[in-house]
Amino acid sequence: MKYIGVDLGGTGIKAGVVTQEGEILSKGSKPTRNERHYSEIIADIAALCGEVVRDAGLTMADIASIGVGVPGICDPKTGVIPFCTNLGWHEVPFVAEMHKYIDLPVQVSNDATVAGFAESIAGVSAGTESSVFVTLGTGVGGGIVIGGRPYSGAHGVGSEIGHMILQMDGELCTCGNRGCFERYASATAIIREAKKAVAEHPESAIMAKCGGDPEKINAKIVIDSAKEGDETGKAVFDGYVKGLAHGLVSIINILDPEVIVLGGGVSMAGDFLLDAVREAMKPLIFYKTMPYARVELARLGADAGIIGAALLGR
Amino acid sequence: MKYIGVDLGGTGIKAGVVTQEGEILSKGSKPTRNERHYSEIIADIAALCGEVVRDAGLTMADIASIGVGVPGICDPKTGVIPFCTNLGWHEVPFVAEMHKYIDLPVQVSNDATVAGFAESIAGVSAGTESSVFVTLGTGVGGGIVIGGRPYSGAHGVGSEIGHMILQMDGELCTCGNRGCFERYASATAIIREAKKAVAEHPESAIMAKCGGDPEKINAKIVIDSAKEGDETGKAVFDGYVKGLAHGLVSIINILDPEVIVLGGGVSMAGDFLLDAVREAMKPLIFYKTMPYARVELARLGADAGIIGAALLGR
Repeated sequence: MKYIGVDLGGTGIKAGVVTQEGEILSKGSKPTRNERHYSEIIADIAALCGEVVRDAGLTMADIASIGVGVPGICDPKTGVIPFCTNLGWHEVPFVAEMHKYIDLPVQVSNDATVAGFAESIAGVSAGTESSVFVTLGTGVGGGIVIGGRPYSGAHGVGSEIGHMILQMDGELCTCGNRGCFERYASATAIIREAKKAVAEHPESAIMAKCGGDPEKINAKIVIDSAKEGDETGKAVFDGYVKGLAHGLVSIINILDPEVIVLGGGVSMAGDFLLDAVREAMKPLIFYKTMPYARVELARLGADAGIIGAALLGR
Repeated sequence: MKYIGVDLGGTGIKAGVVTQEGEILSKGSKPTRNERHYSEIIADIAALCGEVVRDAGLTMADIASIGVGVPGICDPKTGVIPFCTNLGWHEVPFVAEMHKYIDLPVQVSNDATVAGFAESIAGVSAGTESSVFVTLGTGVGGGIVIGGRPYSGAHGVGSEIGHMILQMDGELCTCGNRGCFERYASATAIIREAKKAVAEHPESAIMAKCGGDPEKINAKIVIDSAKEGDETGKAVFDGYVKGLAHGLVSIINILDPEVIVLGGGVSMAGDFLLDAVREAMKPLIFYKTMPYARVELARLGADAGIIGAALLGR
């Protein structure tokens, strides 16, 4: 049997037909146009599922199930999506709506969770039973795999690793709390600290790279400056790595997974980031003579969402 | 079949015969005398197992397995105890040593983990699939139950909830890091903050209760003062509750268990603590309209260690 995976994002819907081993046989996409009513978006998702099945030379009879990764929280028991900020969704009966078009089992899960699951089947954490996927983007998302299965908690609100509190009374977070991990480990954190730093150090390479306009600073500019040895860039990068390392050590002390996988935009910094964070974690590890989670970079890139969603039904 | 549970502590060894439902049929204890070589202590444990079986009117043929809760970390795969600070143990081949005396399956696990497991079978979290047990004592211990089974992670070093970092660069912890959760949520934290507070507020009821000697301050004195309305006691207690609430919310955001169970000495403050921490958590909850873990007080008390260890073999 084959599986359909859908990666539902705020700007685009991607879908693909995936084998049991996580290989993509066909894929396609459509714009989300999230100003529309959810019923129209879900009708498009169902249509896209039909298209990718035809593109793979198959029929729906060859498909075991449909999995959907959603940028929000999901109630896996009811198939309802209680919250999805990017889409403006609130209490959307996703699975029931899909069943108007396709008579197959449909499972929904958080997008970071399914991406982490994909890595644990066909990516860098393949063959492990437990892993934690951490997406370092505008915010910080998390995907937990335990016992080889995605773990979202008892009420579907778990694996919100970005909202673990790392600094009580610290930086204000979009969630309303202060000091959340994502305030220190996201691209947003790098940009915020770089803006502060260039105000004091206008000679920094960061300023040259952003054309003298701090509003144009992004994480890549800061990391590239650090790589080139710019002192201000290095200081911002080191501060970022410190926050990231502290958060990853908390994950190890709680969950002790086999692997921690770093994904998202900031992880594009590659070995420069990986080497720095591994080094920063060493002195923070609790049981220093015991083995602990290896930290790796995600490998599946943009296809992780389709693959992981598809394999929910495996 | 029945099960033997052993609660191995720094000062005492307790053991009991336990039914499948978590009922204790017989129990006994011996001093640990932890200055001795581990082989002598383990010989005593084996002898105590024999005694409690006889006291229950049974023979070893009635026993399915032996479980042992250890105040340290355990490698469940090898049966070796790599670290146990209270006993001064390092790389102790516990299970192999037990098998010199008793030919039954022996399982070892962390003491907070087995106490949490016991609560999930026969205590306040009975009937739940996922729970996190948090012991508020000299330090903060943690026990995670997922899918109805104790969860210790991939390398046996998980569920060290006390060493989740809550305040980067915060209070120095015994583990060498700064800002661990247990620096804010242990009895030790209450005592530390109370000593600081009475230096500024010698009129506090805390000073009267400790006979004017701040070295005699304990958590109960501070909490009793807070209960009576003493301003200094209330301020210290509120600060403690704030740290505890932030840590519990992090646990919810990561693990989203059905229940969080509070045990250990500080939990003896009962509803005064429970009401305060539940209230302090409310504004910190991420998805405020979704259900989340209920917070409860442990119910099994001192027997949790025996019951949970026994049921490891269930």
